[in-house]
Amino acid sequence: MSNIYAERIEALRSLMRGRGWDAVIVWSGDPHQSEYPAERWKQVRWLTGFTGEAGDVVVTADHAGLWTDTRYFIQAVEQLESTGAVLHKTRVPEQVLIPEWLRSQLGEGAVVAVDSLCTSAAAADELRENFTVVGVPDLLSILWGDRPGIPQTPIFRIQAGESREEKMEWLRAELSERGADAILLSSLDEVAWLLNVRASDIDYNPLVISYLLIGQDFAKWFVLKEDVEDPVTEETFDALQGDGIELLPYSEVGLEIAAFEGRLWLDSATASCELRQAAGGRALEAPSPVARRKEQKNPQEIEWIRECHIRDGVAVEKFLYWLEKSVGAGKTVTEWEAAVRLGQYRAEIDDYQGDSFETISACGKGAALPHYVTPRVDSPVIEGHGLYLCDSGGQYLTGTTDITRTVPMGECTPEEIRDYTLALKAHIDLASAVFPAGTPGCRIDAAARLPLWRNLMDFGHGTGHGVGFFLGVHEGPHQIRQNLDPTPLVEGMVSSDEPGIYREGRHGVRHENLVLTVDAGTTEFGHFLRFEPLTMCHFDTSVLDLSLLDKWEIEWLNDYNRTVFENLGTLLDEEVARWLLDKTSPIVLE
Amino acid sequence: MSNIYAERIEALRSLMRGRGWDAVIVWSGDPHQSEYPAERWKQVRWLTGFTGEAGDVVVTADHAGLWTDTRYFIQAVEQLESTGAVLHKTRVPEQVLIPEWLRSQLGEGAVVAVDSLCTSAAAADELRENFTVVGVPDLLSILWGDRPGIPQTPIFRIQAGESREEKMEWLRAELSERGADAILLSSLDEVAWLLNVRASDIDYNPLVISYLLIGQDFAKWFVLKEDVEDPVTEETFDALQGDGIELLPYSEVGLEIAAFEGRLWLDSATASCELRQAAGGRALEAPSPVARRKEQKNPQEIEWIRECHIRDGVAVEKFLYWLEKSVGAGKTVTEWEAAVRLGQYRAEIDDYQGDSFETISACGKGAALPHYVTPRVDSPVIEGHGLYLCDSGGQYLTGTTDITRTVPMGECTPEEIRDYTLALKAHIDLASAVFPAGTPGCRIDAAARLPLWRNLMDFGHGTGHGVGFFLGVHEGPHQIRQNLDPTPLVEGMVSSDEPGIYREGRHGVRHENLVLTVDAGTTEFGHFLRFEPLTMCHFDTSVLDLSLLDKWEIEWLNDYNRTVFENLGTLLDEEVARWLLDKTSPIVLE
Repeated sequence: MSNIYAERIEALRSLMRGRGWDAVIVWSGDPHQSEYPAERWKQVRWLTGFTGEAGDVVVTADHAGLWTDTRYFIQAVEQLESTGAVLHKTRVPEQVLIPEWLRSQLGEGAVVAVDSLCTSAAAADELRENFTVVGVPDLLSILWGDRPGIPQTPIFRIQAGESREEKMEWLRAELSERGADAILLSSLDEVAWLLNVRASDIDYNPLVISYLLIGQDFAKWFVLKEDVEDPVTEETFDALQGDGIELLPYSEVGLEIAAFEGRLWLDSATASCELRQAAGGRALEAPSPVARRKEQKNPQEIEWIRECHIRDGVAVEKFLYWLEKSVGAGKTVTEWEAAVRLGQYRAEIDDYQGDSFETISACGKGAALPHYVTPRVDSPVIEGHGLYLCDSGGQYLTGTTDITRTVPMGECTPEEIRDYTLALKAHIDLASAVFPAGTPGCRIDAAARLPLWRNLMDFGHGTGHGVGFFLGVHEGPHQIRQNLDPTPLVEGMVSSDEPGIYREGRHGVRHENLVLTVDAGTTEFGHFLRFEPLTMCHFDTSVLDLSLLDKWEIEWLNDYNRTVFENLGTLLDEEVARWLLDKTSPIVLE
Repeated sequence: MSNIYAERIEALRSLMRGRGWDAVIVWSGDPHQSEYPAERWKQVRWLTGFTGEAGDVVVTADHAGLWTDTRYFIQAVEQLESTGAVLHKTRVPEQVLIPEWLRSQLGEGAVVAVDSLCTSAAAADELRENFTVVGVPDLLSILWGDRPGIPQTPIFRIQAGESREEKMEWLRAELSERGADAILLSSLDEVAWLLNVRASDIDYNPLVISYLLIGQDFAKWFVLKEDVEDPVTEETFDALQGDGIELLPYSEVGLEIAAFEGRLWLDSATASCELRQAAGGRALEAPSPVARRKEQKNPQEIEWIRECHIRDGVAVEKFLYWLEKSVGAGKTVTEWEAAVRLGQYRAEIDDYQGDSFETISACGKGAALPHYVTPRVDSPVIEGHGLYLCDSGGQYLTGTTDITRTVPMGECTPEEIRDYTLALKAHIDLASAVFPAGTPGCRIDAAARLPLWRNLMDFGHGTGHGVGFFLGVHEGPHQIRQNLDPTPLVEGMVSSDEPGIYREGRHGVRHENLVLTVDAGTTEFGHFLRFEPLTMCHFDTSVLDLSLLDKWEIEWLNDYNRTVFENLGTLLDEEVARWLLDKTSPIVLE
């Protein structure tokens, strides 16, 4: 048993025996319940070697298990080999989630230990229904000698169409209405949005690891981690202090909350059980109002987002041109090289700040995995036939992009052509949907799925997620997917529209644009909304089975491609522009 | 103040003062939370004069209010005039429901009195969060001198493809699994389904007002109200007693439950707070398993339902022929006369037991009201132009039907033609939908609405409701509508598909078939379901704007109309058959 992870799990068991703990849960999240944690909080990876983005671990005296979803089943089985830990499947009909599994294994009142910083107040409440919960801050640090510290990257200010003062004034009105004396913002994108600041503490996410406590006459930002040496951060700090915002050490948020005497609004979905305990009986637990406000982009943000997508589209079109010419000329291009090349085209853009997530560059069976990780070493060569899929996005001072294009690299099979066409039909049917204002996303998810369902096809992921303004590429609470979530769609929201079709071991297709929710008009039947495409990049029309598309769907496609050329044509070199003119030439209807 | 209802409300206030009650709530339901109560429980009508099917009343010392939904706003305002009671709107964005309204009016712990028989345990729980709830059995009987008794109509046995014994065996297995010693069935359709008996205690609903208490080794039916004199009921009682079912007085259910010593499963959504109190700490509150089982029709029921719809279709086609010829010949036909005539055609069918709800027969502005009540006196004459709408259904020993047809009575306006076409497009798009097994109805409701939404249109009612087997024409829990209800659609369910378009003061269109959920096939993407039309009656193709329909929608329509003729043609007189052949002749596509 020389496996390093098996040894770490055994070391944890020794600790458990010494402390009298019956089970330890290690969650994949950080103290802010971020979707992507910084290295310090990749605790599941440190303990078990599992590198998937979602997965929680439970260790008891005689069992170690990893709970993860369909995306990671194959990977989990491979990575857990020889660790002694086993896979527990989630998002399958027969799933047994952690609290239920613990109830089946441990007696009522058994002692379950968790990292009280990385456990949300809501998660702790659920466990307390059956168990004695022991919360230890930084629990794994006892065993993890060289654990990374909390990152501190340069913090800079941004323009976002609405000043920090305006946002704070709005939030203080919300406090009054709710009868709270202060609010703790624990979600990192909420802090960044409110203060109009960004950094790069987390890969792909322009966030500052910090907490923000706002009352009617004070604002305390728990942001200091180590000495600040860079001038950008210094300037930012000066400016915020000038606005009356007090800067405090990150580690002191708990003490400050314990000392605060008023009613403290916190969101138990993102605030840790450690902080909720510090607030004691003065905690007022309710969803943060910032999440819903942040979803609705303001007019300035919308203007910049539109422009940003034109610049991003230029980069993607240059990339697609280069790829087609290179592969067409018989050059060897690997999936990884293609991803790197796309990044280079994006880096040419003025306000580019980095990618918004790790590019998925895949052909053949790789593309059949919706969450494929493009290998850097032994990367597959993109072949001169079949479909190539690229899902990527950029972070810009003027917005966040996320686009998937699937393009033919040569001859395609009838199945590839059919799947390409039906997935595009699904994309168009959602993109062109109209719906009453306030309709939740789960009620229009079917717009994309019905054309697939009719052909006994479906896809296992959501159809659309919210997207931030130079913030997270996944932004809630609104979504367009299967879950019966009631969050209404309203004007100004940015969402993805990304249906796909995946054939295991063969190929995958996904067509993704970001879309803006806009007014569609008011009649005697009510007020309606529709989507405006933000992403500007042509859809390839050479692999379509036109018999599967209705006339109006072809018209939509012609309109969209024409708009792409109108927006990008003059921004491209003559040769690429000519190529794009050809690519966007309309399908002629009889 | 000579209004009789104002006097009754004042009499109730005198009672309240004497008893020290701060408020009285009078619900529209009966002790079984039936959708349609018998005369005895039309308490809201007795108290306020309001005749709508849904409406609850609250009386306090200085306020009397009726809570009802959009369907009844106009009617409520008219009927409440001079009663002193005012309308409180529900199903509108700004609605304030009864518990919330009471909280705004009364102090914490105020005394709220209710009829403990007509108040569900769940409703009482909600009130108890803020108030002292006083439950009085038959509260209004103190004031309502000539209150009708509990109806007792002849009870007969039916065939339903599964014996009483089989159903009881299944239910007893459910009891074991849940760890209950007995279950109380309080919903009338559940009692009728389990015992394979029917009666006509409630208009349009073939139900027996009774309770059923089932344990592992006993079954007690609380059904006796007065002396039984008719031989059919005697035969039924003999047969059930022969099967070991004990017959007890309806009024003794409370005493029996109080005396029962085991764990008693009851459904707090339909069991009264009176009975839950009788069960005390031995109550195990959970949804009844019968509701979900009853929704899935067995093979014998399905066979009979298909046949029943053919016979029902013959009646409707005869009616439509008669109507077209009569109005076309310039005869005076009122909406009421038309409804009566349709009933006569249905009554010619062998196993017809009555209508399944009150026929809506309407032209012009009447049809614009989805829940129009066709007047018997001064009934509007059906004019020789525009659209006529008829929503009706029959109860048969072999099933329950529900059909709406909208037909042209002569020339139609462009708006009528467009609305007729788009509502039919909506109907077809849902009827032809395919979806993964287990999808909840709210996720496919959009199939019918998307084509309307695209034209900035919508309708305010649900798209589909469940339908029983010779039982309620509205049967839950599954539904196809806006509410985010998670009940999955599974094979064997019968639902309506009834989108509409309503133009206030002008016209209304609704196209309704009942559909059966059937297997659509299994692929690598999962198991899929689709709908099979049960209703057999042609859709008129003479008022279509074909430019609004896709080719496949026209093909669906041609197929359906051809199937209708194939099923009904030989069952009609030659003249009507010839007419139907013409009506179902396919639309020719270029």
